[in-house]
Amino acid sequence: MHIEKFSKPETLELPKNFRAAGISAGIKKAGVKDMALIVSDAVAVMAGTFTTNQVCAAPVKLCKKHLEGGKGRAIIVNSGVANACTGPEGMQAAQDMATQTARLLGVPEAQIFVCSTGIIGKQLPMDVIGRGIEKIVPAAKAEGVHQAVEAIMTTDTRPKHCTLHIKVDGKPVTVMGMAKGAGMIEPNMATMLAFILTDAAVDAEALQACLLDAVKKSFNLVSVDGDRSTNDTVLCMANGAAGNKPLSPVHKDWKVFADALHGVAFDLAMKIIGDGEGARKVVKIEVSGALNDAEADIAARAVANSMLVKTSWVKNSPNWGRVMDALGYSRAKVDENLVDIDYDSLPAVRGGVSSGSSLDELKRIVGSECFAIKIDLHLGNGRAEVYSCDCTEEYVQINW
Amino acid sequence: MHIEKFSKPETLELPKNFRAAGISAGIKKAGVKDMALIVSDAVAVMAGTFTTNQVCAAPVKLCKKHLEGGKGRAIIVNSGVANACTGPEGMQAAQDMATQTARLLGVPEAQIFVCSTGIIGKQLPMDVIGRGIEKIVPAAKAEGVHQAVEAIMTTDTRPKHCTLHIKVDGKPVTVMGMAKGAGMIEPNMATMLAFILTDAAVDAEALQACLLDAVKKSFNLVSVDGDRSTNDTVLCMANGAAGNKPLSPVHKDWKVFADALHGVAFDLAMKIIGDGEGARKVVKIEVSGALNDAEADIAARAVANSMLVKTSWVKNSPNWGRVMDALGYSRAKVDENLVDIDYDSLPAVRGGVSSGSSLDELKRIVGSECFAIKIDLHLGNGRAEVYSCDCTEEYVQINW
Repeated sequence: MHIEKFSKPETLELPKNFRAAGISAGIKKAGVKDMALIVSDAVAVMAGTFTTNQVCAAPVKLCKKHLEGGKGRAIIVNSGVANACTGPEGMQAAQDMATQTARLLGVPEAQIFVCSTGIIGKQLPMDVIGRGIEKIVPAAKAEGVHQAVEAIMTTDTRPKHCTLHIKVDGKPVTVMGMAKGAGMIEPNMATMLAFILTDAAVDAEALQACLLDAVKKSFNLVSVDGDRSTNDTVLCMANGAAGNKPLSPVHKDWKVFADALHGVAFDLAMKIIGDGEGARKVVKIEVSGALNDAEADIAARAVANSMLVKTSWVKNSPNWGRVMDALGYSRAKVDENLVDIDYDSLPAVRGGVSSGSSLDELKRIVGSECFAIKIDLHLGNGRAEVYSCDCTEEYVQINW
Repeated sequence: MHIEKFSKPETLELPKNFRAAGISAGIKKAGVKDMALIVSDAVAVMAGTFTTNQVCAAPVKLCKKHLEGGKGRAIIVNSGVANACTGPEGMQAAQDMATQTARLLGVPEAQIFVCSTGIIGKQLPMDVIGRGIEKIVPAAKAEGVHQAVEAIMTTDTRPKHCTLHIKVDGKPVTVMGMAKGAGMIEPNMATMLAFILTDAAVDAEALQACLLDAVKKSFNLVSVDGDRSTNDTVLCMANGAAGNKPLSPVHKDWKVFADALHGVAFDLAMKIIGDGEGARKVVKIEVSGALNDAEADIAARAVANSMLVKTSWVKNSPNWGRVMDALGYSRAKVDENLVDIDYDSLPAVRGGVSSGSSLDELKRIVGSECFAIKIDLHLGNGRAEVYSCDCTEEYVQINW
């Protein structure tokens, strides 16, 4: 498996005609950035996807409503307070954030998207937020993206972003994404905000379909703790400043664009799992040979979310018995006598029992920063993969 | 909620005509008890229930086979190695443990029940086990129960047992149980062994039904980590030495006996959750107002198994937002605007938002050794309860 270590410095650059800002408004402790703004100078085509949690934050409800219009000019974000489980007062607060931002930018309210992340159940400090919006709107500029990627962080230890350059109709196009998310991370989706921006012109329906597909193959494959948040949001803005003919599946450069969008989403997803709360390693769980793809996914997630499996990785233990146990209690069909498990390319289990491989060799693999556990159930053609991380004592300390 | 602290010294006494022993055979490090034996001097009526994991240990398979005969004379147990995922060699080992114990006791092999607990995937050291059986069979005596309850422990910090005295047909009857289990604990069932012994005479079919009911209302209500083991076993032996008329639901003292059996099982279950790996508190999750009982159970387990909920208890945080989040992603129907949550008798949430109760008061409740989170979904009449524990950094350290 190849997962980049992401430690190298990376380009961070907004697409054309986007501006951004990140400020310390005073929601969190003094000096910590807690509000971000992204503005497109022209109306952008918007796509989005949201948490499937039945308990859903006020800003998510507002974004869903505004997405019906399909157009966007700005995303206003606060961290520190999630504005979830806040009732009508919280709904009004999200609405007020949109109204005020729209007024200061001089654009329709329905083109403002609002995101919040942080603690559930507290009301937003609207006086602080109001002063923050007054301050952040005039601060938005191209270089402000550096502050914006910091301002959306909560328990993240580092900002997460990705910038790709492609050509569409021979014109330079940028696809750029930023994300936050470290805990309460389980697909469909995570305590996770991600914003993907491009200056490409894209057909609205094609953008939404392309985003859903990219999210399915990226953010929805990572799990830190199996907890699914109330606030997850992925928004995508395409403002057309690149001047290409609008992209859709019939455009000759569609695949180049779709691959770039998926590439940005996958890179951000890997950065999220690599920065999972307290995590020190990323583990890819690959299941093949399940009765069907859905069962493969169930089996892979049972392993990826098992506390006993995740804790065993901390001290590099190749405890495949716990993997077998998790497969056995998953709701996927498993015949223990048929199960093969490899750690990277080294066999650990054959036919449900030890393959006899060297324990030291297995330990060496589990000791690396990223490795794959490949499970073949030998029952059918179903395949799935999920990315997990180890559960360290720091995870507990971050969340107590 | 009332959960005993279990710190007081308790009677530990075998029913009439039972003997037991616990020894250090050398499976674990020198001096640590790792084999136990329970013997009934007369043939006992046997009942049992086992893990629902599709990956299932060799001794569990053997027990299921022997249970078809319905009669038992002895239970031979080892800790340290689970004899799970061990293939035909492991099956032969379980068989050999039964054969040797039967020969030394001079009883039919089908009346010997075998249990193993410990690491998955390793073969049993049969030379060590063989010498252990030679040593333990002659050691079994009434007082040996003190050694037996210790010998079945793995990561348990204390032995778990319960002895109740009742009268049936005016004759004294003892119902006694012992259990082990601290991690890989989730209902249906847990890495959990429990043996319940009685000198009552009980009809075989009635005993099995009564045991299943007791297990459903006790062991299956506790969850330490959501991981379900390969080896879970509850066995019940009724040897009739009390001389009562055989018990069945038509017997006038049936309810007294059934209550005692349930009482022993519930007490052992509470001791297991109270000794959950690294746990410092027991939390009862009560759900009412779900669409039906099954949905109430799903909702309660989502809360009981949420890592974010369990870690929040460690430092006494009344983080009801995480409870709302877990309810929302459970597969049970939830309308966030209807949800009420109480901590013990103090309202925390009304209609999905903060009730405004004092945070200090809520903290005081979460700071106690045991408390209840009572959730009313206001959708129907479904009810369920599950017992959970906090997830501390020690849980991680025990399992890495």
